[in-house]
Amino acid sequence: MRNLKLKLMYNGKAYHGWQVQANADTVQGRLESAVEAVFGEHLTVYGCSRTDAGVHANEYFCNFRTEKSISCESVVKALNANLPDDIAVFACEEVREDFHSRFDCKSKRYVYKIWNSQIKNPFLTHTACHYKYRLDENLLNEAAQSFIGTYDFKAFCSAGSSVTDTVRTVKAASVVRQGDTVIFSVEADGFLYNMVRIMVGTLINVNEGKIDKNDIQYIIRSADRANAGVTAPAQGLFLDKVFY
Amino acid sequence: MRNLKLKLMYNGKAYHGWQVQANADTVQGRLESAVEAVFGEHLTVYGCSRTDAGVHANEYFCNFRTEKSISCESVVKALNANLPDDIAVFACEEVREDFHSRFDCKSKRYVYKIWNSQIKNPFLTHTACHYKYRLDENLLNEAAQSFIGTYDFKAFCSAGSSVTDTVRTVKAASVVRQGDTVIFSVEADGFLYNMVRIMVGTLINVNEGKIDKNDIQYIIRSADRANAGVTAPAQGLFLDKVFY
Repeated sequence: MRNLKLKLMYNGKAYHGWQVQANADTVQGRLESAVEAVFGEHLTVYGCSRTDAGVHANEYFCNFRTEKSISCESVVKALNANLPDDIAVFACEEVREDFHSRFDCKSKRYVYKIWNSQIKNPFLTHTACHYKYRLDENLLNEAAQSFIGTYDFKAFCSAGSSVTDTVRTVKAASVVRQGDTVIFSVEADGFLYNMVRIMVGTLINVNEGKIDKNDIQYIIRSADRANAGVTAPAQGLFLDKVFY
Repeated sequence: MRNLKLKLMYNGKAYHGWQVQANADTVQGRLESAVEAVFGEHLTVYGCSRTDAGVHANEYFCNFRTEKSISCESVVKALNANLPDDIAVFACEEVREDFHSRFDCKSKRYVYKIWNSQIKNPFLTHTACHYKYRLDENLLNEAAQSFIGTYDFKAFCSAGSSVTDTVRTVKAASVVRQGDTVIFSVEADGFLYNMVRIMVGTLINVNEGKIDKNDIQYIIRSADRANAGVTAPAQGLFLDKVFY
């Protein structure tokens, strides 16, 4: 049995996230339809992450198994011909039979983009969050360092998650400014439901003086969602890099 | 009578161009509705350029006249509150009563963005043209120099234009590469119908070997649309800068 690993990029604006759901347009659903059109049979496509509605991926990996001998190069071309313009397959490679895009992933990096200007940017409506008051990227970068380490991140997990082990290791976290865009970047071995978006909301609350930057460690230790900041909107979030 | 000049930015994807038309959603239509909501009366908004359907503006100026004394700062805020997310007002200033956004404009710069990679970019579907074969930006930049000067550009004007004087002065033209994006930039005292898009199509035909770069001058002199290249699609085109 061949196990094919795909590298994707997608604009999540039009989708109810990655995972197939009844009566909802999803990236997995679109991909499984394209795979079925190319391979002539329905095959389950396993994704590396369950991105939420409106969340994007600069890099995303998934895999599926087939007996068919279509070359990897042809798979890329044929899938792209069967996918909408907001989902692209960049590469296909044959991997060992027991490889799984999600379980074999060592860590992931997410980025969150904030258009930080008085006036909205008409070109970033669906690919950045607009925040009109000046953000102090140095303050936020200092605050973000408190996320680094192995902790129970329950305070940074939205209700509705079925996960019981909420301990994660954050390997890197930073905030940088590029012109009017402020970018939060975070790498971890795994992420809880809405974890990055709650981190961003907390950093914005730090900027507003509602949370002290030195209190982030206490918020983590409280393991209480009520102590962390708001959940920032989905459209600024990108899965940026997946490490195997 | 006050004459107010607005500086805009818009994503043209959703619009049938700038100019008000029956039964079509246009940027001018949206702006006149916002002005009416703020000023309580219908006022004609005069634009600097009639951009086509799907064409964008990084910078656009328009003006309208009113007796109302709302401050320029309040006009910016109130218009933005009444405009959709893909149209933004960046500034408002009071100008002399006979100022006209189009007739007083000395020159304009357009840019045309091409995503030049084998695989489409899901984030640039509506803001760049996808061209999958490798473009030689040095060759295209050399070819683009032939556009510079004062010529009858009738060969670079689509049928359907009512303009009789087709002489224009191109002040600058260049092609540069930024990673996988190739950008054609052109400044002129005025542009004919589809002029930039036909220039881009001609440059792509030069890259494909269908037109020799030294023949552009002959094409201009022929004044025959049939000799120039194809009309490149609208979504890569941006009005980039307007000079007064």
